[in-house]
Amino acid sequence: MNELTIPLKEDGKEHLYQQIYNYIKNEIRRGSLSAGQKLPSTRRLAEHLQVSRSTVDFAYGQLLSEGYIESRPYKGHFVCEITKLYHPAPVSGKEEETPKEASAAYDFSPNGIDITAFPFSTWKRISKDVLMDEERNVFELGAPKGDQRLREAICGYLHGSRGVECTPGQIIVGAGNDYLLMLLQKILGTAQRVAVENPAYMRAARIFASGGYEVTPVDLDENGMRIDLLKKSRARIAYITPSHQFPTGVVMPIGRRMEILSWAKEGEERYIIEDDYDSEFRYKGMPIPSMQASDGEGKVIYLGTFSKSIAPAIRISYMVLPKPLLNIYEEKLWFISSTVSRIDQAILYRFLEDGYFERYLNKMRKLYKGKHDLLLERLKSFKKAFRIRGEYAGLHILLEDRRGWSEKEIIEAAEKEECRVYGMGGYMLKEPEQGGGPGTVIVGYAALTEEQIIEGTDRLKKAWRI
Amino acid sequence: MNELTIPLKEDGKEHLYQQIYNYIKNEIRRGSLSAGQKLPSTRRLAEHLQVSRSTVDFAYGQLLSEGYIESRPYKGHFVCEITKLYHPAPVSGKEEETPKEASAAYDFSPNGIDITAFPFSTWKRISKDVLMDEERNVFELGAPKGDQRLREAICGYLHGSRGVECTPGQIIVGAGNDYLLMLLQKILGTAQRVAVENPAYMRAARIFASGGYEVTPVDLDENGMRIDLLKKSRARIAYITPSHQFPTGVVMPIGRRMEILSWAKEGEERYIIEDDYDSEFRYKGMPIPSMQASDGEGKVIYLGTFSKSIAPAIRISYMVLPKPLLNIYEEKLWFISSTVSRIDQAILYRFLEDGYFERYLNKMRKLYKGKHDLLLERLKSFKKAFRIRGEYAGLHILLEDRRGWSEKEIIEAAEKEECRVYGMGGYMLKEPEQGGGPGTVIVGYAALTEEQIIEGTDRLKKAWRI
Repeated sequence: MNELTIPLKEDGKEHLYQQIYNYIKNEIRRGSLSAGQKLPSTRRLAEHLQVSRSTVDFAYGQLLSEGYIESRPYKGHFVCEITKLYHPAPVSGKEEETPKEASAAYDFSPNGIDITAFPFSTWKRISKDVLMDEERNVFELGAPKGDQRLREAICGYLHGSRGVECTPGQIIVGAGNDYLLMLLQKILGTAQRVAVENPAYMRAARIFASGGYEVTPVDLDENGMRIDLLKKSRARIAYITPSHQFPTGVVMPIGRRMEILSWAKEGEERYIIEDDYDSEFRYKGMPIPSMQASDGEGKVIYLGTFSKSIAPAIRISYMVLPKPLLNIYEEKLWFISSTVSRIDQAILYRFLEDGYFERYLNKMRKLYKGKHDLLLERLKSFKKAFRIRGEYAGLHILLEDRRGWSEKEIIEAAEKEECRVYGMGGYMLKEPEQGGGPGTVIVGYAALTEEQIIEGTDRLKKAWRI
Repeated sequence: MNELTIPLKEDGKEHLYQQIYNYIKNEIRRGSLSAGQKLPSTRRLAEHLQVSRSTVDFAYGQLLSEGYIESRPYKGHFVCEITKLYHPAPVSGKEEETPKEASAAYDFSPNGIDITAFPFSTWKRISKDVLMDEERNVFELGAPKGDQRLREAICGYLHGSRGVECTPGQIIVGAGNDYLLMLLQKILGTAQRVAVENPAYMRAARIFASGGYEVTPVDLDENGMRIDLLKKSRARIAYITPSHQFPTGVVMPIGRRMEILSWAKEGEERYIIEDDYDSEFRYKGMPIPSMQASDGEGKVIYLGTFSKSIAPAIRISYMVLPKPLLNIYEEKLWFISSTVSRIDQAILYRFLEDGYFERYLNKMRKLYKGKHDLLLERLKSFKKAFRIRGEYAGLHILLEDRRGWSEKEIIEAAEKEECRVYGMGGYMLKEPEQGGGPGTVIVGYAALTEEQIIEGTDRLKKAWRI
C-alpha cells in the first residue's frame, strides 16, 4: 500500500500525529488494514497528507510501541497480527455471493451454449496481434456507435446471411442486448406500452418493465404472436422473436410476419423489435431471411448478438435502427459513449474479416445439429407420452404432455433422477386466455455432451415411466 | 462470401432458379454484391437454401451468360465489373461519418488526457498472460455486478485512497459512466427531479434528461452548489462533483459537504450522486476524502472511472451503492448482464493487484503536475488581464476576464492564433441568477506537450494583447 487518505482536522483540538495514529489504529482494529499489509513509508505518507515527516514518525512510533505495527529493517512498516481484537464488519473482506442453485447432473437448460469448440488459440493470437499491430489510438475512446470498419463487417454479414437491408450508419454496437434495449428505450421514449410474446424471453420483458414501460403480454398461436390480440393491446411497440420464438420454438411464417408489419405501418409511432437471438442455428428447411428484410418502410428494429454465436464473454451486440429512429438517436443521444472497448472491437473485427467467424459458425451448426439429431433420436420412444415441438431451429425443444401430467409433476420426477428440465410456466407473463394447455417442459441440449444426452434421456425415460 | 440468404417462394409462380437468378442480379445492380466478390459455390448455396444443386447451376448459368458473373477455373464464380449500371444507395459501402470539427494546432481541451505514458507493453503482457493462464470460464458470462475479485480490488483501492466505506457487494462495475448513470436511473426510478450544478458536466445532465428526468440547474458560489437553491429546487437527487467541480474547479469544503449531506438526510428518498471523476489528480493541500467517506447514513452514490485514470479505451467504471439502493438493485435489476467482458475484468484486476495502477497514477500525477506548474508559470504575466481559478486540482484551469472582454471575444482572438480555448457558456444549463459574470474560458493542458504549452501560451499572449 502506498497511500492512506486520512481526513485531518486542523482545528487544534487534536494533534495531527494523534489523528494519524487513531486513524491507523482503528483501521487495524476494524480489519480494514490486515495483518502483514505494508504501510506507506513515513516520507511518502507525509508527502501525501502534506504534513511534516516527524508528525508521521511520531504516529508510527506510537503504533509500534503499542504493537499494532512492526518495523522490518530495510523493508518498512507492517501491520501485526491482532486476532484477539473484535473486528466489526470488515470493510473489504471476502463476502458471500448469492448462493447458486444446486446444479443437476443433467441440466437441460435452454440458455446453455457449448464453448468447447471455441477457437481459443485463434482468439488469443488475434488479441495479441491487435495489441501489437494497432496504433495507440486503439486505447482512445472510439465512436459512440462503434468502430466504422466493425459496423461495415457486421453490415456485410447481416446482409449476406440474414438479408438485412441497412447501411453501417444504421448499426449501433453495444455491450450486450440488455444495454441496447436500455438505449432503445431512450430512443423510443419513456412510458411506452410494449407488446411481448406470452410465453416470453423474460429478460427483455424485465428490462422494459424496469425502464417504466408497460409490458402487455400477447398470447401465441401456432404461428406466433396473435395479431388480433396485438391489435387489441393498444401497444405501440411489439417485441418478437420471429425466426425462433423463445421459448416455444415457433418459426413465424411469412403470412404472420406480413400481418405484424401491416399493424406497424398503420401507426406512424409503431415499431417492431425483431430479436434474432439464435437465428444462426437452424436445421430444417430453407433459411428464412429476417423480418427486417421484408420491411420497406423503416418499421423494424433488428437486434442481434455475438454473445450467443461466439461466447458469452464477448459482450458485443448490435442493433439496426430504421431511419426515423436513427434520426432521434443522432439528434438526442449521439453523445452517449460506446460501451465496448476499441480493443475488443478490433479483435472481433479481425475475427469476422479473416473468416474465422464463418468457419466457427459452420462448425457450431454441425456440432449442434449432431446433438439435436441425437436428442430427437433418443426421444422417439417418448412420443406416446409427449408431443415434441419447436424442433426445427435453435438450441432447445419442447415436450408437451399427452398423459395428463402437470408441468410440476414432470419437472419433479426428472429432478429425482438428477435431471433438470424447465417448465413453460416460468416463461409465462400471464395465464393465456385459452388456459395453460397441457404440461410442457423445455429441454435444451447445447451445453450437454453427447454422452450426457444419452445418459440424461435414459434417466428421463425412467423418471417419466416411459 | 459463403452464404446468400435468398427469400424463396414455393407458390409455383416463379421457378426457384429464376428467383435465385433475379435476387443475385438485383444485388449486383444495386451494388450490394460488388465487383470481384466471390459467390458461394453452387454446392454450398444449394445446401444453404435447401434446393437441388441443378437449380443453382441453372441460375448461375443464366448470370454467366448475361455477364453479371464470371467463372474462374478451380476458383469459383465472381461478380463482374458493371460500372455503367445505376447503383441506387449502395447497401454496405463506405459512408461518411459525421465530419469532425477542424482541429486547432493548440487545443486546450479540458477533456483531453495524456496516454503517451501509458504502459502499453505491460498492458499487452498482462492481456497475453490472462488469455494464457485463465481458465476457459473467462469466456463465460460473469456476475452481473462484475467479478468478485475485481470488486474486492476496487474496494481496497477506494478505501485506501478515497476513504470510501463499502463492501465489494456494494460495487457495480459497468462499461463507462454513461451506462452506470442509465442503470442508476432504473434504480432510482423514472421521472425524478435531479439537481445538477450550473455550470455542469453536460454529459451527465444529458443522460438524465434523455431518461425522462427533470434536470434542475442549481447555481454555484465559491464553495460549490448553493444549498439555498438546492433546497428550493424540490429535487430528490443532487448530482455533484465535490472533489473538483466540473468545470469551475471548485473543491467543495467540508462545511458545504455537510450541508448537502444534511439536505439528503432530511428526506428518505433523497440521494447524492458524487462523481469523483478526476480525484486522482490533485496538486496542493491535503487530499480530501470522498464525500461518501463522511456519509454514515447511506445517502451517497459514489461514481468513479478507469477511463480517465488509465485510458479511455478501458470502458470500466464503477459505482458504490448505499444499502437502500443496493436492495432495490438486488430485488429488481439483478438480472441485467454485466456490460464488461470477463477478459477485460481479469486484465484490469491484475493491473490493479500487481501494483501497476498505483505506479502509473504516481507517474501521471508527476507528469500532469509538471504540465500544470508550467502552465501556471507561463500564465503569470496574464494576471493583469485574467484572474486564474480552479488551479488546485484536475486537468484544467479557468481564466476569468478582468478587462471587459466577452467570452466570445476571448475565444475568437485565440482561434486566430490557432489556439482553442473553451467558453464557460458551453457548460451553462441556464443563465445564473446573478448574471453570467465576466467572460471566462476553460484551459485544459493534459493532452498538450510541454512544448505545445510554451508555444500555445505565447500565442495566447499575442492573441489577447498581453
